[in-house]
Amino acid sequence: MKRSLGPRTLLHPTPVLAIGTYASDGQPNVMTASWAGICCSMPPCVAVSLRKATYSYGNIVQRKAFTVSLPTEDHVKHADYFGLTTGRGTDKFAGSGLTAVRSEKVDAPYVGEFPLVLECELLHTLEIGLHTLFVGEILNVLAEETVLTTEGMTDLKKLRPLVFQPDLQAYFGVGERLGHAFSIGEQL
Amino acid sequence: MKRSLGPRTLLHPTPVLAIGTYASDGQPNVMTASWAGICCSMPPCVAVSLRKATYSYGNIVQRKAFTVSLPTEDHVKHADYFGLTTGRGTDKFAGSGLTAVRSEKVDAPYVGEFPLVLECELLHTLEIGLHTLFVGEILNVLAEETVLTTEGMTDLKKLRPLVFQPDLQAYFGVGERLGHAFSIGEQL
Repeated sequence: MKRSLGPRTLLHPTPVLAIGTYASDGQPNVMTASWAGICCSMPPCVAVSLRKATYSYGNIVQRKAFTVSLPTEDHVKHADYFGLTTGRGTDKFAGSGLTAVRSEKVDAPYVGEFPLVLECELLHTLEIGLHTLFVGEILNVLAEETVLTTEGMTDLKKLRPLVFQPDLQAYFGVGERLGHAFSIGEQL
Repeated sequence: MKRSLGPRTLLHPTPVLAIGTYASDGQPNVMTASWAGICCSMPPCVAVSLRKATYSYGNIVQRKAFTVSLPTEDHVKHADYFGLTTGRGTDKFAGSGLTAVRSEKVDAPYVGEFPLVLECELLHTLEIGLHTLFVGEILNVLAEETVLTTEGMTDLKKLRPLVFQPDLQAYFGVGERLGHAFSIGEQL
């Protein structure tokens, strides 16, 4: 028997992403975002929603670019720190001890220590309510060799990405492999 | 040293969602979608991207509503089946043995056997490319008591949602709890 919980932002799994931008004075900034997901295959695009009040919001509007760096289980404290602090008057890269690396493809920095990075150019902006949805075209993906299979695919056991639990506000890891997609359903 | 993988739809974790809709003749349909994520806190909204070629696309455009039912580890074959087949000429509910339940809040059906359901009303439509992004306002969340904590929050250990691995096309589970959000970063 199902129970009504009312209107809630509840979806599992939800990602933990570090959004990298440059401010108007050129200072690199990074913030944590979880209201996000892939939103188109051709062109490859990612949707990231930010509040207008964030420093990163203005940076994306101005520079028309952002990066998505994926924190791993080793960087859960850094990922949380990027969400706890604001870039207004604070250099979050210096505060975290992590490195801002200039993207070669777009006008935005990424987190050098995070193993997977999407370099995105702003394609669409959709005002929804408290959040604004930015659609970024993924011009390139950068990955450390250490998180890839020999075939150049990402290996979740090596990458160990974070899962955000929105209603309990907790971080989880990814678990075991359950089966192959577009195939296991044929057994029904 | 990072390696360029080129433009790719690569983000981890990516969800596995069953999108429920009614066709113009009233037949319930359901399809699997992974290009999705929460996109606004107020009003609570979810973004789901579908190809125009899907049967569900036309259903959402016509009915201005959809549901999101969350499959669990017990239903990985059903979730995959919903992505393998088309609703054109096939009753996927009958084919899967699962139950179409009429939402009380919106003009769409959900999967009765899946423990977490978002009831969504279409708020925005954004054409991107191969995919169209639908923003649905979450009017209500329905949950089985068995997946909730005593405080009415979702318990990932009980819910056991699926994670889609886009480049290897595989399903994974969610792993261990790593820490509390908006708190563990203070230890930096």
